[in-house]
Amino acid sequence: MTVTSFDPRTGGVVATVAETGPELLASVLASADAAAPSLAATSPAERRRWLHAMADALELHRDELATLADRETALGLERLTGEVTRTAGQLRFYGDVAAEGSYLEVTIDDPTPTTPGLVRVNRPMGPVAVFGAGNFPFAFSVLGNDTAAALAAGCPVVVKAHPAHVGLTMRQAEIAQEALAAQGAPPGAFAVVNGHQVGVDLVRAPEIAAVAFTGSQAGGLALWRIANEREVVIPVYAEMGTVNPVVLTRAGAADVDAVARGFVGSFTLGHGQFCTKPGLLLAPAGSGAADAVATALRASAPTPVMLTRGIADAVVAGLGAMVEAGAELVAEIPSSGAGWAAPAAVLRADITALRHGSRLLEECFGAVVLVCEYDDDRQLAEVIERLQSSLAAGVFVGTGADEQAPGLVAQLSGKAGRVTVNEWPTGVAFTWAQQHGGPWPSTSVPSATSVGAHGLARFVRPVAYQSVRDDWLPPEARAANPWRLPRRVNGRLAATSTP
Amino acid sequence: MTVTSFDPRTGGVVATVAETGPELLASVLASADAAAPSLAATSPAERRRWLHAMADALELHRDELATLADRETALGLERLTGEVTRTAGQLRFYGDVAAEGSYLEVTIDDPTPTTPGLVRVNRPMGPVAVFGAGNFPFAFSVLGNDTAAALAAGCPVVVKAHPAHVGLTMRQAEIAQEALAAQGAPPGAFAVVNGHQVGVDLVRAPEIAAVAFTGSQAGGLALWRIANEREVVIPVYAEMGTVNPVVLTRAGAADVDAVARGFVGSFTLGHGQFCTKPGLLLAPAGSGAADAVATALRASAPTPVMLTRGIADAVVAGLGAMVEAGAELVAEIPSSGAGWAAPAAVLRADITALRHGSRLLEECFGAVVLVCEYDDDRQLAEVIERLQSSLAAGVFVGTGADEQAPGLVAQLSGKAGRVTVNEWPTGVAFTWAQQHGGPWPSTSVPSATSVGAHGLARFVRPVAYQSVRDDWLPPEARAANPWRLPRRVNGRLAATSTP
Repeated sequence: MTVTSFDPRTGGVVATVAETGPELLASVLASADAAAPSLAATSPAERRRWLHAMADALELHRDELATLADRETALGLERLTGEVTRTAGQLRFYGDVAAEGSYLEVTIDDPTPTTPGLVRVNRPMGPVAVFGAGNFPFAFSVLGNDTAAALAAGCPVVVKAHPAHVGLTMRQAEIAQEALAAQGAPPGAFAVVNGHQVGVDLVRAPEIAAVAFTGSQAGGLALWRIANEREVVIPVYAEMGTVNPVVLTRAGAADVDAVARGFVGSFTLGHGQFCTKPGLLLAPAGSGAADAVATALRASAPTPVMLTRGIADAVVAGLGAMVEAGAELVAEIPSSGAGWAAPAAVLRADITALRHGSRLLEECFGAVVLVCEYDDDRQLAEVIERLQSSLAAGVFVGTGADEQAPGLVAQLSGKAGRVTVNEWPTGVAFTWAQQHGGPWPSTSVPSATSVGAHGLARFVRPVAYQSVRDDWLPPEARAANPWRLPRRVNGRLAATSTP
Repeated sequence: MTVTSFDPRTGGVVATVAETGPELLASVLASADAAAPSLAATSPAERRRWLHAMADALELHRDELATLADRETALGLERLTGEVTRTAGQLRFYGDVAAEGSYLEVTIDDPTPTTPGLVRVNRPMGPVAVFGAGNFPFAFSVLGNDTAAALAAGCPVVVKAHPAHVGLTMRQAEIAQEALAAQGAPPGAFAVVNGHQVGVDLVRAPEIAAVAFTGSQAGGLALWRIANEREVVIPVYAEMGTVNPVVLTRAGAADVDAVARGFVGSFTLGHGQFCTKPGLLLAPAGSGAADAVATALRASAPTPVMLTRGIADAVVAGLGAMVEAGAELVAEIPSSGAGWAAPAAVLRADITALRHGSRLLEECFGAVVLVCEYDDDRQLAEVIERLQSSLAAGVFVGTGADEQAPGLVAQLSGKAGRVTVNEWPTGVAFTWAQQHGGPWPSTSVPSATSVGAHGLARFVRPVAYQSVRDDWLPPEARAANPWRLPRRVNGRLAATSTP
């Protein structure tokens, strides 16, 4: 059995790799399991070195990797070259976050006459299964956010390769393994497996302690259900897709043409294959937003080519289903017909069609969006309440104070993991304050983030040591603070580490 | 339909309350839902005042409450009086933790040429359903850790009363509601409902954002499954029971009689109805531990009276099942026969009987324990690996260095949420460093704790605000830091708040 990738522009075969069989999987799992204690015993500073080395190695092969990726994804050389750089930046960032050490949450309570001495510290959970995304073959794939955060937190990683870019995946894995080996990381720290069944077996494997997934709702929920049927249930951090709504205020509508151009630029990024794609624009009645977006789309004239034939078919099916659900086509750029090409489209619907259970409330992956007009703030608030929760939501406002804005920011913060003002949600910076994860069903664990410093928290579990001799504690928990970590001692946070 | 509580000492009826019907539940939920935004808008300092007022009110009624509780639980006046004091302390502690403000994790990234301005802050999830425990009618019940942590985090609470102490529950609720009203808290901030079906309906209610449960594995997993079948799945933080193992090292065995007496004191606390009860002692071969524990049990001569008839029956059934699974009865204090009385017992089994699937690896709630002898470190390590994960685990060591101890502490830290040395796991201090939650199946969310400062984290969800005007942000996220919170700004932790 093999896994094959295709050139989305032509449909021709690019790469074929063997599926990972049960015996190889067992050996990969045994290796990861064996590596777990030694990873847990390394200092964050050491793991930081590993991640920086992986980043350097990626950048060294930037052009080669971007070229490979373009053949398998058709996302374009410029975007892909930039994505390699971004991914290297992410690897370094998570390494730096680990070395800073706050993620360990070292908390020390000295004994008192009524309470024992307690030291609480976050410990790595163990081997993590990472299911990379198709739409970001670097940043959310083999060496993407999940892998970087799990390794940074001290967990071995087993990646289930995305079938759309298996050639690129195996090359990235090779580069990463060489870099890790050169740094002296244990062989089981990182591995890649291929095939559908192996993904299921991975989630069922007793050696696996957590799962990180980026992709469709169907895929994420399937893994979540499998994990929930294990004897020892493990967390599944699934970052899935929903419709990210953007609201244009009445004051903001003065700039409707500029907003429309920005909207088109955002929802056609990566051929509309972003989990943060703005899929719904709620504009004030009479703003002419739908026509403005249609005009901007025609001017932009994108020619989407999807990652897989399945996605291309789903765009066409989704478009049809939305029309059936009451939406009207305002502009369509037809598919070129070659390879996995798909149409781009703007639809308009009466806002009352956004009813519970309607297809219009669900994501259509690809360059397809819906515009609805609202009559007043009350109607707008009711509609927002009815939307599925999302990873991100946006508001476009006028200059200065905007009477609608504060209420919209507040309401949307209850429905999304990130709220943007006058910016499109498609850019997701990897920084300390990022939150890339929203309420169910956009994410299976809404308090978790797959991008940003808090991403490490997904892969650790706190342990409290009660009245344990100092030299029997792991180094991060010891009184002398050998790793110079930020700590909370007797309730007081010490940002600067004690030497 | 009514819910009735009984005097465990006699089996006589103590209190009867009406089950909460669907209409009353709907109104309770509507109230909680309506209160959620106003709770979210209060400052942590204001909620601290509410919690301190609840604590004061509890203490004002300490004797009355302890007397009520003793009739419904038979846990004894001294223990129950102390538990009221502890519960008041907990309420104050969670209020103080909220006011300190670290739980909000305010993180600010100023804009850079390549990244937008981002402010990340934890926001209250909304109404929380709390399923209190029977075995701690104060500390883990109506106004216990879960309720205190949820209110401290800014979430309205709806408690599903434990049927074993409905009279006490309603009185505690009355006291709490008066205290909250006097502080000006919104009416929907706190409510109690009664009945089995209402508990199921509560977990299914769209208004409920999270569930906290303390109790049996069967009960916790049932709620977890119901929540997983919702359209919008919500987190269920179930703190359930497992066997908390304690290992006696060869050096520690020099004190076997003292350890045996301590063991009996610990496993008979609350008539063996602690989720942290040490249920298994692994002692070195030839230490005579089982006989020593038997002697100590006979000397202590406890007369366990269980919280419910069901628990009393389960003790007898569990004891029988353990004997059937290969354990031998070393000492038994027979049940007095009155009310919900139950036996206390020490069993011994060959360590090889601790096999996957054996009843001996499961909890027997009540004053029933198992002692096994290990031949060497290798056999001991293999057996520990086979145990279910637990809330806590302990090691009893000799004086000075103990060659077995460091390895045992390390191994047990992978199997439990808390590891104690030379202390029994039954005491759970509410402090900053506490961790009361272990790997599955002892807890449904192993990274969460139901006791200690980190308990608030269960009821908040991070939101990132991107390029949002300062005055449109919630107060905790504003640049001026009006609540003087610890923050991380541009990656640097500022422990002392900026004025």
